[in-house]
Amino acid sequence: MADVVPKERKILVAIDEGEESMYALSWCLKNVISENSKDTLILLYAKPPRAVYSALDGTGYLFSADILATMDKYSNDVAASVIDKAKRMCREQANEVKVEARVESGDPRDVICQVAEKINVDVLVMGSHGYGLIKRAFLGSVSNHCAQNVKCPVLIVKKPKCSSSGTK
Amino acid sequence: MADVVPKERKILVAIDEGEESMYALSWCLKNVISENSKDTLILLYAKPPRAVYSALDGTGYLFSADILATMDKYSNDVAASVIDKAKRMCREQANEVKVEARVESGDPRDVICQVAEKINVDVLVMGSHGYGLIKRAFLGSVSNHCAQNVKCPVLIVKKPKCSSSGTK
Repeated sequence: MADVVPKERKILVAIDEGEESMYALSWCLKNVISENSKDTLILLYAKPPRAVYSALDGTGYLFSADILATMDKYSNDVAASVIDKAKRMCREQANEVKVEARVESGDPRDVICQVAEKINVDVLVMGSHGYGLIKRAFLGSVSNHCAQNVKCPVLIVKKPKCSSSGTK
Repeated sequence: MADVVPKERKILVAIDEGEESMYALSWCLKNVISENSKDTLILLYAKPPRAVYSALDGTGYLFSADILATMDKYSNDVAASVIDKAKRMCREQANEVKVEARVESGDPRDVICQVAEKINVDVLVMGSHGYGLIKRAFLGSVSNHCAQNVKCPVLIVKKPKCSSSGTK
């Protein structure tokens, strides 16, 4: 068993601004990646498409170009900072693992399923919630959608609440 | 990193008569269990409660004691053969791992969530379908329910269809 050459696996981790997706990444680094593995970790951040912002404006007026540019910048900054944080976590917890990052625009439900399919990943890891309470109410659970639609195994990680039972 | 003592994890694998749950178990043995781990694999089979059989009788008459005894025996035999098959798979694919088996009666959705909670498992592994097309239509997806209700990470494994794209 010890001589078995570890398989090269592609592990896709969907990340967002929420703590839960960072917890999912951390759980994955501790439990899925083994130290002698040849795994490649692909961090995926789905940037909301501009339509999501526009939809916030219920007045019927379009945003000015200035405001749109500001929003785009904000959205790019958030993406960069999420990816940064995730990469730092990878370096600290599993220095050997190969890490790639992808930022794609679109509804996270579609983006995650499309990327999982396109690059033929071995497993998709994600938090169970994320993407905010309000957006979730409109869009439905992202993890639920992905678990039903991607073909590869899906690992859904929940962030434990501050030990309610006292046993954890 | 190589000197780190592996954590003892409890991995709960929900199994049933279907091929998909056996595929999920096999995927777990290959991808989650590492050879130097102290993991305990807990195989869980949820035996349908008698009410499920009774519900099949739409005539309003109760089954005789004979028939009920036959059904109970059948149900126990199925449980034993599923557990047997799963244990054999564990021995063949990951001989070192500690394996326990549990058979519990009840709706699989409840049984799986209850056991996961009670023995405080580190991860729950299951197929995405299973429990038959007809039962699923009544009960809803078992994996979906569990992913939403258990607190631990849930790994949902789908059995790949016979390579449709030709890339797998």
